Amino acid sequence: MTSTIPDRMKAVIKPAREPGLALVELPVPSIQPGEVLVRVRAASICGTDLHIYRWDEWAQGRIKPPLVVGHEIAGEVAAVAPDVTSLKVGDFVSLESHVVCNECFYCRTGREHICENTQIIGVDRDGGFAEYIAIPAQNAWPNPSTLPLRIAVLEENFGNAVHTAMAQDVSAKYVLVTGCGPVGIMAIAVAKAAGARKVFATDISDYRLAMAARAGADLTINVAEVDAIPAILEATCHEGVDVLLEMSGAPSAIDQGFELLKPGGEAALLGLTPGPFTFDLNSHIVFKGAVVRGIVGRRLWDTWYQIRGLIESGAVDLSGIVTHEFALEDFDEAYRVFMSGESGKIMFHL
Amino acid sequence: MTSTIPDRMKAVIKPAREPGLALVELPVPSIQPGEVLVRVRAASICGTDLHIYRWDEWAQGRIKPPLVVGHEIAGEVAAVAPDVTSLKVGDFVSLESHVVCNECFYCRTGREHICENTQIIGVDRDGGFAEYIAIPAQNAWPNPSTLPLRIAVLEENFGNAVHTAMAQDVSAKYVLVTGCGPVGIMAIAVAKAAGARKVFATDISDYRLAMAARAGADLTINVAEVDAIPAILEATCHEGVDVLLEMSGAPSAIDQGFELLKPGGEAALLGLTPGPFTFDLNSHIVFKGAVVRGIVGRRLWDTWYQIRGLIESGAVDLSGIVTHEFALEDFDEAYRVFMSGESGKIMFHL
Amino acid sequence: MTSTIPDRMKAVIKPAREPGLALVELPVPSIQPGEVLVRVRAASICGTDLHIYRWDEWAQGRIKPPLVVGHEIAGEVAAVAPDVTSLKVGDFVSLESHVVCNECFYCRTGREHICENTQIIGVDRDGGFAEYIAIPAQNAWPNPSTLPLRIAVLEENFGNAVHTAMAQDVSAKYVLVTGCGPVGIMAIAVAKAAGARKVFATDISDYRLAMAARAGADLTINVAEVDAIPAILEATCHEGVDVLLEMSGAPSAIDQGFELLKPGGEAALLGLTPGPFTFDLNSHIVFKGAVVRGIVGRRLWDTWYQIRGLIESGAVDLSGIVTHEFALEDFDEAYRVFMSGESGKIMFHL
Amino acid sequence: MTSTIPDRMKAVIKPAREPGLALVELPVPSIQPGEVLVRVRAASICGTDLHIYRWDEWAQGRIKPPLVVGHEIAGEVAAVAPDVTSLKVGDFVSLESHVVCNECFYCRTGREHICENTQIIGVDRDGGFAEYIAIPAQNAWPNPSTLPLRIAVLEENFGNAVHTAMAQDVSAKYVLVTGCGPVGIMAIAVAKAAGARKVFATDISDYRLAMAARAGADLTINVAEVDAIPAILEATCHEGVDVLLEMSGAPSAIDQGFELLKPGGEAALLGLTPGPFTFDLNSHIVFKGAVVRGIVGRRLWDTWYQIRGLIESGAVDLSGIVTHEFALEDFDEAYRVFMSGESGKIMFHL
Repeated sequence: MTSTIPDRMKAVIKPAREPGLALVELPVPSIQPGEVLVRVRAASICGTDLHIYRWDEWAQGRIKPPLVVGHEIAGEVAAVAPDVTSLKVGDFVSLESHVVCNECFYCRTGREHICENTQIIGVDRDGGFAEYIAIPAQNAWPNPSTLPLRIAVLEENFGNAVHTAMAQDVSAKYVLVTGCGPVGIMAIAVAKAAGARKVFATDISDYRLAMAARAGADLTINVAEVDAIPAILEATCHEGVDVLLEMSGAPSAIDQGFELLKPGGEAALLGLTPGPFTFDLNSHIVFKGAVVRGIVGRRLWDTWYQIRGLIESGAVDLSGIVTHEFALEDFDEAYRVFMSGESGKIMFHL
Repeated sequence: MTSTIPDRMKAVIKPAREPGLALVELPVPSIQPGEVLVRVRAASICGTDLHIYRWDEWAQGRIKPPLVVGHEIAGEVAAVAPDVTSLKVGDFVSLESHVVCNECFYCRTGREHICENTQIIGVDRDGGFAEYIAIPAQNAWPNPSTLPLRIAVLEENFGNAVHTAMAQDVSAKYVLVTGCGPVGIMAIAVAKAAGARKVFATDISDYRLAMAARAGADLTINVAEVDAIPAILEATCHEGVDVLLEMSGAPSAIDQGFELLKPGGEAALLGLTPGPFTFDLNSHIVFKGAVVRGIVGRRLWDTWYQIRGLIESGAVDLSGIVTHEFALEDFDEAYRVFMSGESGKIMFHL
Repeated sequence: MTSTIPDRMKAVIKPAREPGLALVELPVPSIQPGEVLVRVRAASICGTDLHIYRWDEWAQGRIKPPLVVGHEIAGEVAAVAPDVTSLKVGDFVSLESHVVCNECFYCRTGREHICENTQIIGVDRDGGFAEYIAIPAQNAWPNPSTLPLRIAVLEENFGNAVHTAMAQDVSAKYVLVTGCGPVGIMAIAVAKAAGARKVFATDISDYRLAMAARAGADLTINVAEVDAIPAILEATCHEGVDVLLEMSGAPSAIDQGFELLKPGGEAALLGLTPGPFTFDLNSHIVFKGAVVRGIVGRRLWDTWYQIRGLIESGAVDLSGIVTHEFALEDFDEAYRVFMSGESGKIMFHL
Repeated sequence: MTSTIPDRMKAVIKPAREPGLALVELPVPSIQPGEVLVRVRAASICGTDLHIYRWDEWAQGRIKPPLVVGHEIAGEVAAVAPDVTSLKVGDFVSLESHVVCNECFYCRTGREHICENTQIIGVDRDGGFAEYIAIPAQNAWPNPSTLPLRIAVLEENFGNAVHTAMAQDVSAKYVLVTGCGPVGIMAIAVAKAAGARKVFATDISDYRLAMAARAGADLTINVAEVDAIPAILEATCHEGVDVLLEMSGAPSAIDQGFELLKPGGEAALLGLTPGPFTFDLNSHIVFKGAVVRGIVGRRLWDTWYQIRGLIESGAVDLSGIVTHEFALEDFDEAYRVFMSGESGKIMFHL
């Protein structure tokens, strides 16, 4: 069953092996068995999209132009393959960006987020900065029809925050979030919703620290100006923090975070460092008896059920996370604002 | 070091093997090595105290009069044994009621709450419905001096609620609390503080269900009037609940709770049934693949650190739990109100 | 791709709503997308098959004749649907008996064993006491071609034992297995392979207790003759056991098991009782602070990977579990031996 | 109660801030409340003792001469303080080397192994390379009187191996042990006892790899000669390992270990690196979704109970770990053999 679907669509693509993107017209994709076609209504920009825009070393090694970019997507189901029974035309969905194989060891043991055959939309296959995207039905997560588009578009990225913050118990604990990009800010909100004793937030942008405070951080520290270590020790009766949520990828923040971590503390690492760096495994992990978890994507689909619960109950309020909206045509301006650092999430409406 | 301590004190005791209690004058207890003397400032009544008051079968088997009763206690340290360094005279403390041996298998593996040599104050040794009580220093938990007495006196009992609610993850989950005595009501508040998706509460007292609603329950059901099963199924899209916190000890509530529990769900059982009863292990536990945890007391001292974090952060508001205050002399009237069922916690001030 | 497959096959079916089974000739089943056709080489009898044979109350409520029975199956892939890439003709496979939907909450959170749409082969859809069975590809678990058939046929049932024994840590612990049918015996072997301190086994059959001893039980007790409680207390320095693996479904064994369980102990319940029974929740679970887990089937597919590891490494030796072999034609004699209680596993070869 | 205790005793001490040790005569230490006096019968040499012998940078910063060295000790209780009830004169004990405060946050939450006030015998207070040592009663772990001295002396160090290997589930899993000193070798034995699928061992000493093979390693690799990565990938069907037990402290071994770790794998780190080093957090931990645990000492007293269970059941055979015995007077020769790398554990008998 299908609604009226045009033949062609607008899409933002990486057209060639060089910096920048282009708005083009493409055929609307066709769907394979098990897939649905989604009419995109909103999309947002992630740090990964910036790597692709700038065509940095990582992008050069991974991206094969031409490619429709974009992986944070919400929209309506416009068509379903004949064998799909879990969704119907008109359903309002947010997309999980990792297309997984369902057959490898990891998929078969409830850990699809580390599937060895993962393809990420907008990275390894066509993404959703476009009017339509074809995607496996299991990647289209149904939302209540009343969910605001500005929140639905965040769910994939919010899932990173939920996965990181929920990777260990934070209730009644001191939590430090290093790095206050949108994921860090949302992780602050999750930690507060889960009953953290105090949440501390560090960054080098006053704009983002102000967002962190609005999300519920009890103490925000601009580490370009203030030494976080004595400040947080003082705020914790010189105990340090029970949980570190590392969202920055900055070696200096990682060092600070582990230095502040209590013996027996737990760290969840989502941020990616620019490369290998000098790390004190003895002090930071071994002597502390610390537990450290690497965080990849979201648990499929455990995290999505948590997302639903946290949003539905109002425990987490995401209404302030999108700070800017653009038409897809204005993508260059959107990326410019994104690069300024003076934004929360930037959303395209289509 | 000591403040001025009188020779004799008022105390409420079980004087003989029969119903009722008596207010008497006793010598102030002396302290042993490792102990402190606490000047009691507040005490509250627990269900256990009622068993002792009524002199029921359990009480007849366990209690050896004469005994000072009462185990929910807050006060000030009045004297410390010479070998005690962790506390000083004047410290404001709440008491852990389980005196443990520190030497058995359970104590030596971080599970002092199931110590095989446990003595409970007010049950197995003199309690705190008295002006003074002698107790091991480790049982006197230091509070901030600014903590209201009406909250400090609750900490032991609040610990039952925290232990039960935190025995499994409740964040983003549907939680059912069966039984809305003070512990149930406080468990509701903990579950909400930890980010539960929805909390359902059942009881047969409208008075208590009104307290449950004030504590944050999303739906309260008087099971004397309404069938909880269809009501909660409807409120959960026919899924049932992820977590059951059983606080009533009523076989009918236990059956309802397990019937509403999802496959793979988790149940924490604190309530004590009147005795063995007909239980459907197949349907309630085996076929469901459920996880069921018996809950005894509080984790020593993990739960007390959680108590501190939850109160300090304001995540849980206990200000409405004590509904009545009495002088110790008016203990009979206090028990009368307690037995009416129209109360939250009842506190003695001394 | 297919090997030469006949049009018709032998099969043992429940022909009508009455006791007994029948050997008949049926068309070889056709396969749907996502399925494979398996040429059955071995099948074994489970307690469930006996319920169906006898046509008891449970069977009357669940089974819809005519139905090919049997769910413990090993064989070779004879044909694969065009969309199946994970298996090829000739692969040697054991079958997972639970056909799951992959779409419900439980399937999507790594808990397919409690799928709300489960169909069990030989119970809810045609089974494998037949020359051929059609089954979803994901239910056909590939074995090394060198694995003996007498072991391959056990994997499904062995999975129950692994799931139960591995549901909690047993290393260096006292473990009690109540009920020494084949699953109990295999659970003993798993507990020993995982480094249990001592494994105790109870049953009322000396034949089965002898098998338990050969599987590694340190102490076997015929509870029809000897009181297990003083015997096991003595063997554990009056501590009791750390872990209870309940495989009997006998209320008296369940009571004994919980009475012997240490405070803080863990129980995994696989056995099904004849119905609700009088259970002492207070003493058995609440006061003990026990953790109790209901066990259903096997974790899909976590348990299957564990099965592979335990068999491949030789940590568990299953070579003595099958005690009798029959041709499919002799099914009545096979059931007769099964009902005698003087057997381990009984296998059909085809 | 005491046996006949002399006034003076032999002891090996660090006499001054310089390399080497000295055998001297000292007064037998007196015991404080809560302590016991142990007549040392066996002691063994640990890597830490070598740091002190050589007087390296770490030793210069930590050790305050004069100090009796040695922390791996077994012997008999010779005297007990009047308040000690858990032990009596004549009990055969092994010593836990970490003297903890029982009062800090970590001690009060079942994590005494990371006590913030830990004093290690032979490092921070007088040790046991002496005829007598005074130590808190809780640090003297009672053994069966029949336990061979050569095994009793190993228990402290064996505890490191148990703590590391048991920090995650290893049953039915591929396990890699990097570093085959005595702790690594004992960890191999523990992993096998717990039902590991295969255990791989790497080192640069053929002597130690031969011990590893005797302890049960399925594949040993001298990484000075052979590239471990292709060898282990081949032995695991190109999957890599589920669990890494890092015992070497060598950055190259750490890199190899993490490179071989599967996504979602678990690593337990006991080895100490010479200092900070260049580490690829992205590839090794974040992208893998790995869980990494720092391991300090032994769980007090959880690990000691596991030690008892594993030795008593015979699941682990430690009889080949001590390879050399010396009289205390021959300590210089003992250290010389230790430094040769051609030894297992070296034991003093007294």
